[in-house]
Amino acid sequence: MSARLWLNGALVPAAAARLDPADRGFLLGDGVFETIAVRDGRAWHLPAHLARMAAGMAVLGLSCPWDIAAEAEAYLDAMRPDAAVLRITLSRGVAARGLWPGEMTRPSLVMQLSAPPPAPRPIRIVVCERTQRNQNSPLSGIKSLNYLDNILARAEAVARGAKDALLCNTSGDLACASAATLLVAVGDDWLTPRLADGALPGITRGLLMRAGLVREARLTVATLSQAKRIILANSLGLTPVEALAARAIGIDGEALARMTEATRGDARRRDGGPE
Amino acid sequence: MSARLWLNGALVPAAAARLDPADRGFLLGDGVFETIAVRDGRAWHLPAHLARMAAGMAVLGLSCPWDIAAEAEAYLDAMRPDAAVLRITLSRGVAARGLWPGEMTRPSLVMQLSAPPPAPRPIRIVVCERTQRNQNSPLSGIKSLNYLDNILARAEAVARGAKDALLCNTSGDLACASAATLLVAVGDDWLTPRLADGALPGITRGLLMRAGLVREARLTVATLSQAKRIILANSLGLTPVEALAARAIGIDGEALARMTEATRGDARRRDGGPE
Repeated sequence: MSARLWLNGALVPAAAARLDPADRGFLLGDGVFETIAVRDGRAWHLPAHLARMAAGMAVLGLSCPWDIAAEAEAYLDAMRPDAAVLRITLSRGVAARGLWPGEMTRPSLVMQLSAPPPAPRPIRIVVCERTQRNQNSPLSGIKSLNYLDNILARAEAVARGAKDALLCNTSGDLACASAATLLVAVGDDWLTPRLADGALPGITRGLLMRAGLVREARLTVATLSQAKRIILANSLGLTPVEALAARAIGIDGEALARMTEATRGDARRRDGGPE
Repeated sequence: MSARLWLNGALVPAAAARLDPADRGFLLGDGVFETIAVRDGRAWHLPAHLARMAAGMAVLGLSCPWDIAAEAEAYLDAMRPDAAVLRITLSRGVAARGLWPGEMTRPSLVMQLSAPPPAPRPIRIVVCERTQRNQNSPLSGIKSLNYLDNILARAEAVARGAKDALLCNTSGDLACASAATLLVAVGDDWLTPRLADGALPGITRGLLMRAGLVREARLTVATLSQAKRIILANSLGLTPVEALAARAIGIDGEALARMTEATRGDARRRDGGPE
């Protein structure tokens, strides 16, 4: 974590950054966030990330007194990171006890920079058995602070000696990995779960679809058994899967390169929002 | 909110209480909580609440370096409230970026006192249409910090001119209200949704079941149309329902009194855990 955060419009030393314990982000997971790659000092696809954040805020009835894009630029201008991960969190802030605070007064906006992750290496994954993603909740379509199902899936993967787990939805169809879009090569096509099946509208997912490299489909665990290749994609990179449970899976370096190229172009395009 | 909180083992003025913005409770909703009635200076059914909290911690793989019961007693001894609401929140605390922090180092324990709610008055409720409770997730059985589906249900109720909304599970069966156990009088019985249907193992629910006043059953929206009486129950009280959407529902003062009596007895019983 960086030594300085951006907290409610100001740069503050991490050691002095104070969040009220009555913040609804802490008490109820009441908020949204984005995780954004910073490369060459630039927040990649920032407009697309902020468009998704705005969609999440609309679902939760959450407003924000700040221009988040301007705040992010101000934070990056002050910090001048080369390569990093920028996390932007907006919570509903402090309110009286109770589920519905009525008119919201003062949300909390927190931005944090972390060290970039190491370059993706091939991983082994499993299909999560412990929990399911609820495609019938509007939360499955937004990046909210309610991440415990994903954490349970990741913990299960680790307990089973794997690096990640795929989540099925409540109908048994595949939805996503714990923090990434699932891409599966079947026949000549790269397929990804549909939004209606509980997939998050990922920024990288949208870029790959607009580039014509990936298309949506209903995917089941049976589909996985036909998978020639599997890739997990999120804003921090594309991770090839080398094994699904006990089955080895080959790696398609050419597809990875093509997809990486598609996700890097036009990083600051103003109209680069998610589908 | 009280002027002083209990934060990681110490009494601190609310204005000085600092939570690290990198706390996973804030970033990911990674933690559990309890809401407990304080009456006559005592935290009611504290052992049962802490047993449920421990069950939630086990689901999340969360440990705590403090004796939470002793911390709660110390906080109440210092504050000496007469009537209040005690909220106990335990999060996984600060960790490096990423979903699974591995060995957890330092969780955050926060206790807050709030003013008691006004005495329950009859309310109108609706059945939530916007989201569903995921009975297939272990989270439906614990009181975690992921409360957004409940918040969406409450917000929908308010938008529809009601005070609360009942949540169905992904099979369409009734699970609970947004922050209370659902009790429905059908024929001569008081029924409540089963844990397998997504009901939280409520402390009041457990007391009423052990008193023989309520029994578990699968409940559907069709069941509601036969309901003679409806009550919402949580640790802060029993709220009679006077209308379900447009249909008026009578109030059974005798049942309310009998149930209230059953929830008040043996408040400090050490074996008073939830079923």
